[in-house]
Amino acid sequence: MIELRKPYLVFLADVRIPSFAKTAFGLRDWARADCLGQLRLESCEVDLGLPDMDPAAAAAAGAGSLVIGIAPVGGRIAEVWAPALLAAAECGLDIVSGLHTRLEAVPGLSDAARRGGAALVNIRTPPAGLPVGNGVRRSGKRLLTVGTDCALGKKYTALVLARALRARGVSADFRATGQTGIMISGAGIPIDAVVADFLSGAAETLSPAAATDHWDVIEGQGSLIHPGYAGVTLGLVHGSQPDALVLCHDPSRTVIVDAPHIPIPPLDVVARRYLDAARLTNPDARLVGVSLNTSSLDDQRRESLLGETARQLGVPCFDPLKTSCEQVIDDMLRDALPESRRT
Amino acid sequence: MIELRKPYLVFLADVRIPSFAKTAFGLRDWARADCLGQLRLESCEVDLGLPDMDPAAAAAAGAGSLVIGIAPVGGRIAEVWAPALLAAAECGLDIVSGLHTRLEAVPGLSDAARRGGAALVNIRTPPAGLPVGNGVRRSGKRLLTVGTDCALGKKYTALVLARALRARGVSADFRATGQTGIMISGAGIPIDAVVADFLSGAAETLSPAAATDHWDVIEGQGSLIHPGYAGVTLGLVHGSQPDALVLCHDPSRTVIVDAPHIPIPPLDVVARRYLDAARLTNPDARLVGVSLNTSSLDDQRRESLLGETARQLGVPCFDPLKTSCEQVIDDMLRDALPESRRT
Repeated sequence: MIELRKPYLVFLADVRIPSFAKTAFGLRDWARADCLGQLRLESCEVDLGLPDMDPAAAAAAGAGSLVIGIAPVGGRIAEVWAPALLAAAECGLDIVSGLHTRLEAVPGLSDAARRGGAALVNIRTPPAGLPVGNGVRRSGKRLLTVGTDCALGKKYTALVLARALRARGVSADFRATGQTGIMISGAGIPIDAVVADFLSGAAETLSPAAATDHWDVIEGQGSLIHPGYAGVTLGLVHGSQPDALVLCHDPSRTVIVDAPHIPIPPLDVVARRYLDAARLTNPDARLVGVSLNTSSLDDQRRESLLGETARQLGVPCFDPLKTSCEQVIDDMLRDALPESRRT
Repeated sequence: MIELRKPYLVFLADVRIPSFAKTAFGLRDWARADCLGQLRLESCEVDLGLPDMDPAAAAAAGAGSLVIGIAPVGGRIAEVWAPALLAAAECGLDIVSGLHTRLEAVPGLSDAARRGGAALVNIRTPPAGLPVGNGVRRSGKRLLTVGTDCALGKKYTALVLARALRARGVSADFRATGQTGIMISGAGIPIDAVVADFLSGAAETLSPAAATDHWDVIEGQGSLIHPGYAGVTLGLVHGSQPDALVLCHDPSRTVIVDAPHIPIPPLDVVARRYLDAARLTNPDARLVGVSLNTSSLDDQRRESLLGETARQLGVPCFDPLKTSCEQVIDDMLRDALPESRRT
């Protein structure tokens, strides 16, 4: 598994458009306690509201890593960022990047890291030595968020559910499968970058055996009905052995965004596909909730859609940005108890 | 796509056990016309029945590649093979290997290849630049062999069907997704070595748009119900957009060999899963046959099982080693015709 050294100095470089700094905002929103400060170049126009710090100050304050929190078009590291990256590495901060450019390709950065005793961590590169999945049941409980398509809230939903579980005093970990998730969590595996043979083995490694009442809340990827990424999704489902699935959907979509010739089937059909797949490695897998992204709806239509979907699927339905997920948590925890202890 | 230079000099090295030379026997059986000869070291005890040739003679006779036709335990290139490999590269023969050891790691081989103008081809390494799959329908017809488990005849079945189609005068290509298949065909993509994001894109690349009456017969990999490899299988199914599926099964297996805690469901359930998956990218996908490996049965039990399975699944059922696949071909070709031309 990739493991990052916290706390972070969040590098915003010269970014001017907030949407290119999504990762940085995600860190601020979901790992605020792990972010010591932000490092911005002179022309930067985005502000996370964190203290501005240079690498030396961050290192003195105990920072473990400089995390590149932006993703410009093309995903490359710009030349003008290099002095800041070198300075951070010289100070002993690990440099963490999810961009296409490998950190080793930045002139002088490997040497600076060696001198500073820092690591260069390319989050797109999966860890070595992943096994082939074996499908043997592991102890502990697992929830996996799954979706009708890409980019409709699987990470956000998992973060919300993990937070809600912990707020109840339940032992729970968010398990990250994508770059931003790995930065937020400080650990994880970029599942879509794994060699195909090791897909489910990577997912098995990501959520290892745990205490019987511990929940891993696993960030889903792709979709079983996405013509490009379904293989990734199936490997993740099989390796995760989820006890609980939460299906994420954006009701404004009727087709796969990347493949508009492919219609999204009714939610109950999609849920059935996921359950069929999940039960290969966990015959007890159940759908426990539906997470809808209703940002395009007014309050009345939101309430009516959430209610209607809950009735259709027979599970609680919520919008993680707008409504409560507590009923999902209630049901999960009740159903996960031994029969004798259920109320 | 990986493309190999034919014809071949088949390298048997110092192998003593025929089962370690499966790839070489596969080449002899399925690509006999492409095999100029065999190259054996002194201690070799396996004989393909091909003319013995040294690299210089093979090069003079027009050979394009020396193909390593054996896979010893551990999958490594032994030191004692090196002189023969170097001599072949010096003569201008491409060196083709499906072993774990990369050819570049054999001391002196890269230099010898440079001098000889030869390429070093590691078949485990997928081609660069594979796209993400888009699921857009392509012209031409495709058959994919799929299975209840690994290693039960998907490659063999595909080879038999491709040969039978060509024997009818149908334009047909065997499309290889594994190492032996790639050597037999001279081209292909090792699908299980592809980075997960590009799985179905690799399958799309493997069987490109073709004439409307052309058939690509695609070698299946893994199984949708294998806990380690199902992601590979699903990506291959989606990218192949098969019009026709042939389900391969070994009736002596009741569980997944690598995962004996996972039972193999009834064949109709497995077939339904494959059809559900395939229809995402090809709504016309149909099951056209079942291929059974009945080597453990006597003639009477074979006939009865084939008949029973055909009745259960509603499609012709054959054993590619023992019985004819012609009824599958009949049905495929009839159903692939426009309605007006069907008899």
